[in-house]
Amino acid sequence: MNGAEALLQTLIDSDVEVCFANPGTSEMQLVAAIDKIPGMRPILGLFEGVVTGAADGYGRMADKPAATLLHLGSGFSNGMANLHNAKRAFTPIVNIVGDHASYHLELDAPLTSDVPGHAALASDWYRISDSAETMAQDGADAVAASLEGRCASVIVPANYAWTEGAEPVAPKAASERPKVADDLISQAANALKSGEASCLFLGGKALREDGLNAAARIAAATGARLISEVFPARIQRGRGRPSVERLPYLGEFAADALKDLKHMVLVGAKAPVSFFAYPDKPGRLWPEQCNLIELANQLQDQVGALEALADALEAPAEVVLEDTPLPEIPTGPMTAETVGAVIANLMPENAVVSDESNTSGIFSYGYYDGAAPHDWMTLTGGAIGQGLPLAMGAAVACPNRKVINLQADGSAMYTNQALWTMVREDLDVCVVIYNNSSYAILDLELMRVGVENPGERARSMLDLSNPSLDWTKLAEGMGVPATRASSTEEFKAQFEEAMANKGPRLIEVML
Amino acid sequence: MNGAEALLQTLIDSDVEVCFANPGTSEMQLVAAIDKIPGMRPILGLFEGVVTGAADGYGRMADKPAATLLHLGSGFSNGMANLHNAKRAFTPIVNIVGDHASYHLELDAPLTSDVPGHAALASDWYRISDSAETMAQDGADAVAASLEGRCASVIVPANYAWTEGAEPVAPKAASERPKVADDLISQAANALKSGEASCLFLGGKALREDGLNAAARIAAATGARLISEVFPARIQRGRGRPSVERLPYLGEFAADALKDLKHMVLVGAKAPVSFFAYPDKPGRLWPEQCNLIELANQLQDQVGALEALADALEAPAEVVLEDTPLPEIPTGPMTAETVGAVIANLMPENAVVSDESNTSGIFSYGYYDGAAPHDWMTLTGGAIGQGLPLAMGAAVACPNRKVINLQADGSAMYTNQALWTMVREDLDVCVVIYNNSSYAILDLELMRVGVENPGERARSMLDLSNPSLDWTKLAEGMGVPATRASSTEEFKAQFEEAMANKGPRLIEVML
Repeated sequence: MNGAEALLQTLIDSDVEVCFANPGTSEMQLVAAIDKIPGMRPILGLFEGVVTGAADGYGRMADKPAATLLHLGSGFSNGMANLHNAKRAFTPIVNIVGDHASYHLELDAPLTSDVPGHAALASDWYRISDSAETMAQDGADAVAASLEGRCASVIVPANYAWTEGAEPVAPKAASERPKVADDLISQAANALKSGEASCLFLGGKALREDGLNAAARIAAATGARLISEVFPARIQRGRGRPSVERLPYLGEFAADALKDLKHMVLVGAKAPVSFFAYPDKPGRLWPEQCNLIELANQLQDQVGALEALADALEAPAEVVLEDTPLPEIPTGPMTAETVGAVIANLMPENAVVSDESNTSGIFSYGYYDGAAPHDWMTLTGGAIGQGLPLAMGAAVACPNRKVINLQADGSAMYTNQALWTMVREDLDVCVVIYNNSSYAILDLELMRVGVENPGERARSMLDLSNPSLDWTKLAEGMGVPATRASSTEEFKAQFEEAMANKGPRLIEVML
Repeated sequence: MNGAEALLQTLIDSDVEVCFANPGTSEMQLVAAIDKIPGMRPILGLFEGVVTGAADGYGRMADKPAATLLHLGSGFSNGMANLHNAKRAFTPIVNIVGDHASYHLELDAPLTSDVPGHAALASDWYRISDSAETMAQDGADAVAASLEGRCASVIVPANYAWTEGAEPVAPKAASERPKVADDLISQAANALKSGEASCLFLGGKALREDGLNAAARIAAATGARLISEVFPARIQRGRGRPSVERLPYLGEFAADALKDLKHMVLVGAKAPVSFFAYPDKPGRLWPEQCNLIELANQLQDQVGALEALADALEAPAEVVLEDTPLPEIPTGPMTAETVGAVIANLMPENAVVSDESNTSGIFSYGYYDGAAPHDWMTLTGGAIGQGLPLAMGAAVACPNRKVINLQADGSAMYTNQALWTMVREDLDVCVVIYNNSSYAILDLELMRVGVENPGERARSMLDLSNPSLDWTKLAEGMGVPATRASSTEEFKAQFEEAMANKGPRLIEVML
């Protein structure tokens, strides 16, 4: 077989089942291989940011990689923003990036660019295949690297893809996640036993149900607060699960939330810092007197560390959780919060939420602690345009779960093409677009840099009205059934209907 | 004033009038500066690929740079594909890229990435500002670099943007384009006088009217063929202008077109190579016996070189041009070619064409030699998603000229957000979408790699039906008046109406 076929067979043997793709001429051998060899489901995205964002959503939910198929440096660069988010989420992804034939590069044809330079910027691991024979091993190594929590890229020169004489290789086992040393467990246990104000600062795998259960045991034994990072990759929430505080986005509020702490134990999260710098405001958000203990980083065994810590503290084996009450279903004028209250009440068990609601979602996040159990994914890297493709990928990974995308309008425009794939693949996604006709977060940020009364030129860079975006038409233009809600009652009726039926659906919330 | 204000005032003083923008928090000081200081027109794009593609279209038509305003590495990466095209077009552009405050970088906040690494990949010139005081000079130097035909980027750490005590600097004159040495002119003249089969292979500025007039004199004196590169940045065409052969896209046809040549004089174009490599096919497209003479590259004085060469050949001062007949206006079943024939007949004098029609435009390109005089811009770098933003930027540069965008559907999806800005800025652009529901070029390429009867999985990566894209609805969703044409007569009526009225308009051609 040729290099492309050997690589593809190896990926399939390594349990990679899905390839989100936007191929070009240099990837035609890989397209032909997918056609010929059964076992890989190709899913077309009409823009590479859709492809990579979908692979992120898939990887977060499946805990194994999807492949992507990307066209040279320019195709890769179109997908880089969502790979940035995926890197920050430690999502397993295997990018297959075509390049010109190795001997063609020196001719500097129009699409030539530094593909390895691109891959280096947006991957944790990358390799350039250097023969047809080595492509399969490159693929196996990439899968193993991805399973350790890395965004992996294999760059495939076209001539190796078409050269015969290659063979698949056996899948490579991923390394075990490194365990945390006993003395670090003891150190954290002693800090938490001090009786001083302390917290577990949680991210990554620590926010999965088993991690949270261990964290709740620790909290019960020590009184430590449970706080999640601002933008978790995936947190398991809802009735019957321990609820955690979420660190506020704005640095001032975050610093205030942490100001009394004497000990902060980091599990799967980095020490909290301000998203951006501002004049005369601190970047580090933990107080000076606070003792930071990095128990387990995102590549280590975070759940094991929490369980070991709970045991070291002789914490109770089970914790009785307090129920978080659901807000009442509101009526009357529609706000982002009334919409949140409706969704929290009506979302079905086991839903998956892709949250890129930005300013529109921020005040209703807490409502969902009382909702049916669900998974919640956020914008880990801050590169907007993630929500729609993330929902799309999650729906591919979880065909029997309802996916709900809470989506800011400005961010949705970046990768609106994802709507089309939702129809093509008949994915069970309900997109809720918060149409507030602005980059609302930037209105706030402009004020924060001291512009209190912005003039026309400043407003023209932040405002999305004139013309208004009509998301109902945009969705229908890509085949997605869509409705518009102008009151809480209308939204409730439309959302109820969306929950009762499978398949893609968009509700435009007019704020 | 602060660093942002000093930089902005310097750009304005350097005759930069337009800033295509998609700012974020780290650029708020620049937004505030644009608000405060008159002289810079900010134009919002709802995705960075729109911003950079528009700057490319503006620069090609205005022959001076627009600024772009981009948000960190992820914002820049979203614009990189169209910067790749701009680099290949040698378009003057000045990117202003915000970065975190210099002291904030070490905290590795979520949006942190290697901004200089990004800039290095998609700029010909870049600099990281290292204080508030130096930002203005960085801007002046970037403008000068851009005017030499370079894509320039200035990376602005947020803390220098907000620091006071900076002052604008005087504009910096761009270097003259290097003249071509006399002995190279003589060498080219001798080759062309040999009587052997020869051509001028033209790109860059050589395809402007003055360059073409000099080239026509040379052709008249020597019998040399005039051939343009496959994807010119901007060629001035139509009645009263010398017509040139366009090198075919597919390597086999291109090699055939060049096979008899003994001398090829390159002016503003690189020696022709195959866009992609294929097994057992040559990458270099000129024949072995052909003598290549690189008279002037894209950064040199190409028009001066042609005029000097014409004079050295004692060519006639004026050449009587043969008129190229227009095709008749067709009727009946609509094809890409009947649409092309209608447009060639009806387009007004001085129109600007942004051609990303790909397979749909390829067979009607020649029709336009007989059309009213116009400028024609193509996909220089092969990174699709250029056509809509290029048209948008050209319309900003040329408010009194009709802009016509010939646009393939698959490519249009990449940067569909440009439609919104066309409405917001009331740009006089008529978008003609060729809706053939496929990546038709890839159907061809799949065949060329030997897959004659692609199966379902291969087709699923190339086909854009299921669901069909409804461009009329997509356009209306962004506020653009749109109609759909199903016959040549319908198209003619709709196109006539679009030519008779100003403002944005989309016609969806159902192929």
